[in-house]
Amino acid sequence: MALIVQKYGGTSVGSLDRIRNVASRIKRLRDEGNQVVAVVSAMGGVTDKLIGMANELTQDPAERELDVLLSTGEQQSIALVSMALHELGVEAVSVTGRQAGIKTTGSHTRGKIDAIDPSLIHQYISEGKVVICAGFQGLREDGLIHTLGRGGSDLSAIAVAAAIKADTCQILTDVDGVYTCDPRVVKDARKMPEVSYDEMLELASSGAKVMQSRSVEFAKKYGVIFEVRSSLNDNPGTIVTEEHDNMESVVIRGVSIERSQARLTITGIPDEPGMSASILSALADAEINIDMIISNIAHDGMARHSVTMHSNDLGKAQAALKPVLAKLGDQSKVETEGGIAKLSCVGIGMRSHSGVAAKMFEALGEAGINIGMITTSEIKIAVTVDETDIEDAARVVHSAFDLDKAPAK
Amino acid sequence: MALIVQKYGGTSVGSLDRIRNVASRIKRLRDEGNQVVAVVSAMGGVTDKLIGMANELTQDPAERELDVLLSTGEQQSIALVSMALHELGVEAVSVTGRQAGIKTTGSHTRGKIDAIDPSLIHQYISEGKVVICAGFQGLREDGLIHTLGRGGSDLSAIAVAAAIKADTCQILTDVDGVYTCDPRVVKDARKMPEVSYDEMLELASSGAKVMQSRSVEFAKKYGVIFEVRSSLNDNPGTIVTEEHDNMESVVIRGVSIERSQARLTITGIPDEPGMSASILSALADAEINIDMIISNIAHDGMARHSVTMHSNDLGKAQAALKPVLAKLGDQSKVETEGGIAKLSCVGIGMRSHSGVAAKMFEALGEAGINIGMITTSEIKIAVTVDETDIEDAARVVHSAFDLDKAPAK
Repeated sequence: MALIVQKYGGTSVGSLDRIRNVASRIKRLRDEGNQVVAVVSAMGGVTDKLIGMANELTQDPAERELDVLLSTGEQQSIALVSMALHELGVEAVSVTGRQAGIKTTGSHTRGKIDAIDPSLIHQYISEGKVVICAGFQGLREDGLIHTLGRGGSDLSAIAVAAAIKADTCQILTDVDGVYTCDPRVVKDARKMPEVSYDEMLELASSGAKVMQSRSVEFAKKYGVIFEVRSSLNDNPGTIVTEEHDNMESVVIRGVSIERSQARLTITGIPDEPGMSASILSALADAEINIDMIISNIAHDGMARHSVTMHSNDLGKAQAALKPVLAKLGDQSKVETEGGIAKLSCVGIGMRSHSGVAAKMFEALGEAGINIGMITTSEIKIAVTVDETDIEDAARVVHSAFDLDKAPAK
Repeated sequence: MALIVQKYGGTSVGSLDRIRNVASRIKRLRDEGNQVVAVVSAMGGVTDKLIGMANELTQDPAERELDVLLSTGEQQSIALVSMALHELGVEAVSVTGRQAGIKTTGSHTRGKIDAIDPSLIHQYISEGKVVICAGFQGLREDGLIHTLGRGGSDLSAIAVAAAIKADTCQILTDVDGVYTCDPRVVKDARKMPEVSYDEMLELASSGAKVMQSRSVEFAKKYGVIFEVRSSLNDNPGTIVTEEHDNMESVVIRGVSIERSQARLTITGIPDEPGMSASILSALADAEINIDMIISNIAHDGMARHSVTMHSNDLGKAQAALKPVLAKLGDQSKVETEGGIAKLSCVGIGMRSHSGVAAKMFEALGEAGINIGMITTSEIKIAVTVDETDIEDAARVVHSAFDLDKAPAK
């Protein structure tokens, strides 16, 4: 008998039929003698519909009220999933974020989980009940309803798993697991049986859509091993866990791509302290997520900074930089390039293997693909290429590192 | 400056346009210098849609989960009304039943308000904010979400008005007030400027659809004077208040009708103690609301009981009585009559005026309308007539008591 936490996303509970399917899956685990806590999202489309209503009423809905509004989506799901379980003869009870003891902190619509008091969940489990817990929500210190922002239900599931010391945490979603690359792009991409937290983090932050980084970070911090698997079949998924020695034999774990990127370069920056900071903080104040950052000194002795961002943010970034440029002096200039994409190779094996970058660049070169910016971390190499080249780039790199073949044990 | 509690029902917040209209009405009160707490229902149709989903999943949805599900309707409304107020530049905050400190007791889906801790509402009012409070819901002692059943939002409004000692409590609805009779039946029915709690109670329990009795009882108990008025215009409505001397000059305040009634008569009951009780408790156990009860002894020395109920309940009642009849002995028999309706005359003036029943029966007799059962209370006379006669009956009685004319002051 195991204590299992499962998370079902919006697609998995997207209709009454799918809710029935979720209930059957939970019943099966139950019949096998397990204790189950299922964390569920709002039914697919509900959150968007609610946001649409809010936006129709006001251009800038108050975040306090958005939290009140959006948290109803999960509250509806938990009641409906519980009812579907009752229909199958399974004793189940719903708990909201508040009842699950999920205590949050931070601004509205972007809550962070601060602590969990799982006493009610424990009580229901000890009474032999399946617990259906609302994802994406908690109760803030001040007693207000609080939502956790994007990927919040994953975070709820991992936090609940940590709090109740679950044996297993399964993130059930509409994909089969984490792949060596997006299978829509690279046909022979393989599902990874296992990936380390750090690799998953780098993949998540570089375009792999499976999970938000924050949930992975939380899992890493609290040592919650979880599995990403499909809610539509019974295939084993991908286990996300601490790295162990075996993992290092694989140089590159996976390749991720991120489209619709843009580069913004500021040239003619006087090479003085504080200049970079003033540029980056102007972008941060405008709430622009910048990704790659490259900085060097040009032959004229002036500094230049290049950053990448989502191309939607380019206009806002240029606007935010106007006052900064005025201060930097006459020689400063902004140039931009849209239509680029980012390719990242990720693997903890990189730490102990040399020549990874060379092999990657060689493969791209042979395919006639031009590289723009390059950044590296301890376990990642990322490059920008023309957006039209990104799929080819993914395929040649995937193949160069033999990612289509199962790694030797 | 007054402290005003308003209640807006599901029709009043039934669309985003209507929500904007509600926000404008609240803003106007606010601009006039008042403090406002608005209690709102779920958007019209939302509750039914949620119940429909529950019923699609299971024939008999658990009431605990129905409470979790249905309470989301009001939670959505309060957020949306608050946002609409923000758009008009009015500072507003939503509070759920829990945040409003509405403490409840009793079974799920049929909660009773036990106490209110209005400290958060007071805090927001003192900060100059309009408070938008979810009707129909509260928090039960055990921390579970609890709904209040039919008419629950009226109850919430009256209870909040009592708790915060509001100067005025307005129940805003889709009718203009309480009429001397249903204006769709009696064309010259008049809106009453004022009605006593007891009259309102008798009217409510005898078919006037404006409010549930429980809210009126609560208002009476805590002395909350309230006004029933339209959310669509600015006409003064009907004030429901303690009775006072002036009120007694009016013999009959109003006439109400209730259709789709049925009579069930049990004859041949041995005239022994406990017989009535066993019949009535069998009906109560089957959750059948019985209305009029008449009992007497027939010429054969056996007792007979007649009761009325909604005609939908007739089959269930007959089934529930079968085992009782078996015990009563061979002579006992049930006969039923559907297709009847009830006409009630209500007025506290009845206490000090004689001849009211005679006048009523005379009017019906002159119109050739046959009377079935008759029951009376201190301030009500009710009769059953053939359902096909009920509209004529209402008109002749309304006219016999001059209800179309404004009473002399």
